Amino acid sequence: MRMIDILECKRDGAELTKAEIDWVIEAYTDGSLPDYQMSALLMAILLRGMTRAEISQLTQAMVRSGSELRLRDMLGSYAVDKHSSGGVGDKTSLVVLPMVAACGVPVAKMSGRALGYTGGTLDKLESIAGFNVTLATERIARQAREVGLVIAGQSEELAPADGLIYALRDVTATVPSIPLIASSIMSKKIAAGADGIVLDVKVGEGAFMTELDLGRELAQQMVRIGEDAGRDVIAVISNMNQPLGGAVGNALEVREALDTLRGGGPEDLREHCLIIAGHMLSLAGQGKRWVDPGETRSALLESLDSGAALQLFRDMVVAQDGDARMVDEPDRLPGARLVETLAADRAGVVQSVPARGVIHAAFALGVGREAKGDALDHGTGLWLQVKVGQRVAEGEPLVTIHANSEESLARCRAELDGLIPLVDEEVAPLPLVFDAIHGRRQPRGAPSP
Amino acid sequence: MRMIDILECKRDGAELTKAEIDWVIEAYTDGSLPDYQMSALLMAILLRGMTRAEISQLTQAMVRSGSELRLRDMLGSYAVDKHSSGGVGDKTSLVVLPMVAACGVPVAKMSGRALGYTGGTLDKLESIAGFNVTLATERIARQAREVGLVIAGQSEELAPADGLIYALRDVTATVPSIPLIASSIMSKKIAAGADGIVLDVKVGEGAFMTELDLGRELAQQMVRIGEDAGRDVIAVISNMNQPLGGAVGNALEVREALDTLRGGGPEDLREHCLIIAGHMLSLAGQGKRWVDPGETRSALLESLDSGAALQLFRDMVVAQDGDARMVDEPDRLPGARLVETLAADRAGVVQSVPARGVIHAAFALGVGREAKGDALDHGTGLWLQVKVGQRVAEGEPLVTIHANSEESLARCRAELDGLIPLVDEEVAPLPLVFDAIHGRRQPRGAPSP
Repeated sequence: MRMIDILECKRDGAELTKAEIDWVIEAYTDGSLPDYQMSALLMAILLRGMTRAEISQLTQAMVRSGSELRLRDMLGSYAVDKHSSGGVGDKTSLVVLPMVAACGVPVAKMSGRALGYTGGTLDKLESIAGFNVTLATERIARQAREVGLVIAGQSEELAPADGLIYALRDVTATVPSIPLIASSIMSKKIAAGADGIVLDVKVGEGAFMTELDLGRELAQQMVRIGEDAGRDVIAVISNMNQPLGGAVGNALEVREALDTLRGGGPEDLREHCLIIAGHMLSLAGQGKRWVDPGETRSALLESLDSGAALQLFRDMVVAQDGDARMVDEPDRLPGARLVETLAADRAGVVQSVPARGVIHAAFALGVGREAKGDALDHGTGLWLQVKVGQRVAEGEPLVTIHANSEESLARCRAELDGLIPLVDEEVAPLPLVFDAIHGRRQPRGAPSP
Repeated sequence: MRMIDILECKRDGAELTKAEIDWVIEAYTDGSLPDYQMSALLMAILLRGMTRAEISQLTQAMVRSGSELRLRDMLGSYAVDKHSSGGVGDKTSLVVLPMVAACGVPVAKMSGRALGYTGGTLDKLESIAGFNVTLATERIARQAREVGLVIAGQSEELAPADGLIYALRDVTATVPSIPLIASSIMSKKIAAGADGIVLDVKVGEGAFMTELDLGRELAQQMVRIGEDAGRDVIAVISNMNQPLGGAVGNALEVREALDTLRGGGPEDLREHCLIIAGHMLSLAGQGKRWVDPGETRSALLESLDSGAALQLFRDMVVAQDGDARMVDEPDRLPGARLVETLAADRAGVVQSVPARGVIHAAFALGVGREAKGDALDHGTGLWLQVKVGQRVAEGEPLVTIHANSEESLARCRAELDGLIPLVDEEVAPLPLVFDAIHGRRQPRGAPSP
């Protein structure tokens, strides 16, 4: 096998064979394929595209580059997982996973600690004092069986080829390739071992995918990869043109998740969680339980109303060495020194809550990290009090800033200045979800737990 | 300046600025730009193309990466140069340069020692015992003034960025990009300092460019680069579907060049040399001398008939420490131990003399080098005795093999087996030249010498 032949093939728009893809991934993972050849291939893939077969083979080769978790063995039942492509104020996992677990479907979720303008799920959970995300596989398995819910960092290296390739893509302008994005996400999900996966593909100005067409293509490709790998997949394409819920910031988002688990919380977040959790249940039910959407929804609402979901979240916090008092009394969560509310300077209707502007404002407060290993500030953030289409009176609060320094407060205030336009005419609320794509059930699918 | 922005720009098909191109070439030459980013850019350029402005700026940036020769100062007159994109049996320089010099236009040609299936001009000249191609700039200048003709290796590093980039292109499948080929060739020619350049762009199965369209595009781009750099350029697009002349091999080609300088030689080679030399004179004459093609041709024919061109070749050999007896008595040139002639097994008309097959047959004899620094065999080669369209009788010789081992002879014979098909019907001779593209004269052009 010669890399030059593989490069010529993709450069000229032809299809790579499984053997060629396997060879590239093995050679790059073991360090024998130099970066300069891999980066040329990545650019050729970005510009020439990949066929369904190539995308699936690339994904499987990346899965085989490391160990695979046996999630089904760990849980003793059909394993269901979720993934979000990332958005502003996306605390969905913190609410959805306890809801699903409370309906009798055990959940063990492995999260990465991705870079981003706002923290990831692990960062949010670490707002809770003592919460331990570094668990050995054995402990994850035990907690999944005993508690029914565990959220941890990846204790084993899943799909290491993906990490190596992503680092190279990041510095060679080859990130925005849908085949490369789809295979990257799916390689980690498949290696994590779930039987069924619900993908939350965010589209809009606050998401990586700003165009609906591209988001739909990404969703479609990921569903196909799942089909080819014998996994059940549902991809939801959801709107990320305004933040989800009101809280943007680690402890603030935990607090909003707790509100939602208590049956409150913002309407859009609650509804989004019901949709994602419903799809997870429908996969886990495998067409036997949770076959009726109305029944599924009732069961999920019941998990909130009964306090069962909140209880499961609390049990998880206790099991993972977290301070449960912060769950019971959210005021104990980390806060910020300076709190300032910006109010409407006129009466009117909210025309937009531009997600990208909110990202920049939150980033000024230290909510996310710029480089790997950067510390982030758990207590700071924004609390948005309005949604697109909402009517406000003059002087009504639009957003509250939680800052830890005068300087960051000033920078955040500058970012927010004029960000949320108020108009006289009616504005339609934004849709929550654009579409959902269901993968064809594979024979591998097992009966319900 | 950030490389990631430059990569994104070219990836998305936009035009790079002069400042961006300059920065890339400087950073890559000084080693601060890593190979993996450069190779991604090269692949993006190959797939996205470059505008005329980008191609010219790339060329000029590569010229500025090293020193530039002051050929005009060296010669004391308008400096004319030629370049061939490389073909089988292309000994044109050995004949053309003495012809031009004999017409009163001094020539100092800097040659590279490129890889190839057959040797380069320097390799051919080194068939002459003692011939020294490693001359200091001072000596080149003196010989150009005193003898009027010098052919030497590049004593200074011209366009070092081109060498670095070519090495990377070679291993990343980014060689066949016309903008990259055109800027690579022209950067070295411009750095070598000629005022006027005749480009011999070979097209056909024995050339790098196999398609006429692509050869024309390459020629056009090189002419434009010359215009933008204030050089006078004529690009001839010539046929390389059968070898030029009959000799393929270093000493054999010198012998054929000497035949041609003596007024003999194969008709196609003689005619091709008259065409190239005519264009060189028309550039050097700058519209004052050599304005009439008929007069130019007469002067060139006279340079052959009078022996003046041969005498200049001999003077050059003496000046460069070569054994002039090999010029006077070509039988003294290196020969081969085994000589075998393959004859026609039937009467008929030569349908084709496939240049690519001839390359492989010659390569089997050790005529070229596979890797930089490989030794090559000066005495071996092929002597083709037929041209496309020629009628031969049964038993008439088609080709003579000059080999130095039984093993290489056998491999060469196998390559030649059935290579030259004989048919009953008439076959039209191949055209020598397809087209010529003349660059617009630039104001920089100086009066005739």
